[in-house]
Amino acid sequence: MRVPLQNKVQPMKDFPQTLRNRVRRIPERGNYSKDTIYPILDAASICHVGYVEEGQPYVIPTLHGRIEDTIYLHGAKASRTIKESASGIPLCLTVSLIDGIVAARSLMHSSLNYRSVVVFGTGRMVTEPEEKIRALEAITEQIIPGRWNEARKPNEKELNATNVAAVSIESASAKVRNGPPIDDEEDYSLPIWAGVVPFSNRMGPPVPDSRLGEGIQIPESIRRLSS
Amino acid sequence: MRVPLQNKVQPMKDFPQTLRNRVRRIPERGNYSKDTIYPILDAASICHVGYVEEGQPYVIPTLHGRIEDTIYLHGAKASRTIKESASGIPLCLTVSLIDGIVAARSLMHSSLNYRSVVVFGTGRMVTEPEEKIRALEAITEQIIPGRWNEARKPNEKELNATNVAAVSIESASAKVRNGPPIDDEEDYSLPIWAGVVPFSNRMGPPVPDSRLGEGIQIPESIRRLSS
Repeated sequence: MRVPLQNKVQPMKDFPQTLRNRVRRIPERGNYSKDTIYPILDAASICHVGYVEEGQPYVIPTLHGRIEDTIYLHGAKASRTIKESASGIPLCLTVSLIDGIVAARSLMHSSLNYRSVVVFGTGRMVTEPEEKIRALEAITEQIIPGRWNEARKPNEKELNATNVAAVSIESASAKVRNGPPIDDEEDYSLPIWAGVVPFSNRMGPPVPDSRLGEGIQIPESIRRLSS
Repeated sequence: MRVPLQNKVQPMKDFPQTLRNRVRRIPERGNYSKDTIYPILDAASICHVGYVEEGQPYVIPTLHGRIEDTIYLHGAKASRTIKESASGIPLCLTVSLIDGIVAARSLMHSSLNYRSVVVFGTGRMVTEPEEKIRALEAITEQIIPGRWNEARKPNEKELNATNVAAVSIESASAKVRNGPPIDDEEDYSLPIWAGVVPFSNRMGPPVPDSRLGEGIQIPESIRRLSS
């Protein structure tokens, strides 16, 4: 490590490259800057949390929310994933966004356009009520921006039934591919179509709950999601 | 385990529930049948592979292809993920499909509709050329069905530069949520919108490579992707 991870005077913008976070395959696709990494984390609907129990890895999809250098995860009190994530053992959190299907003339060079981030860190259980609320707000806003102030907030009983893990981002890297296929020079003359098929998420028109009260309009947050 | 994992006479349709694969939180969302698990694996564009190196978990997104009870992964000869996946250490492969954003009246009951599968297994390096080709075909067809027979197939040099790991599915489980929000009974009278926003992948119109030869039409496989 070149600099201490926490530096209040001048916050670190890049994660140091170490054996753990270095992008080895196609290193020019690697990026260690928070300016690249954090927008990818924030654009993802879910993350995949990896933890180890008795030598066996577990990879579990879950919602997440980020506040500065911390990723918050939540679950019921009985959730094993949250307990493990909060226990201080080594974690790996990964998000992946697919942007396109890259069809090259050769199958060898066919690929995806994507943005992925791999985070290494350790977690603690959030016990302070203020932090717990802020974490749940971050997780809610991650998936439906603006929803926190529209819906019924968690009451004390619900808060007590919920565990929140705070995972400190110790190290991270992004890997990004974009652009057209790159074929071997001699393959460009082949009579084979090549290009990119753009790939994105689509939110359909909201489907109101069958028990929705009369006259309740679609709120702003939901309208924005589908637009 | 109730039955041996490999049973040629009567193939097993369900994975036995063990401590490793049992869905603990909201067990009614859990499913152990290949009839549920395999279509989810086959519908996913990528999987997240989890492995452990010196106690540190790594979760890496990658393409995959399935043939019967084996998941194939591929990468360059230097790929650490493929080397680890083929080394026989315990692996966890997870795929997640998001089908909807579930906005309940309470934030507590807001959720996602999703289909996810967690696979446990161990891998070996594929050395037999026939199997390697079949694996690469499965991985290609997983992402662009029909592309294998349209593009230039890997030559011997490319095959030698590619590693393929065959991960035997030893155990697996699916977790599925669908349907409307389920609110606490007393919340149904709140003047808060509730419902589901459908979530899916959209493939945009194909973008031809700028060096595409004149007169080369968009092939059937690419046309189907975007339709």
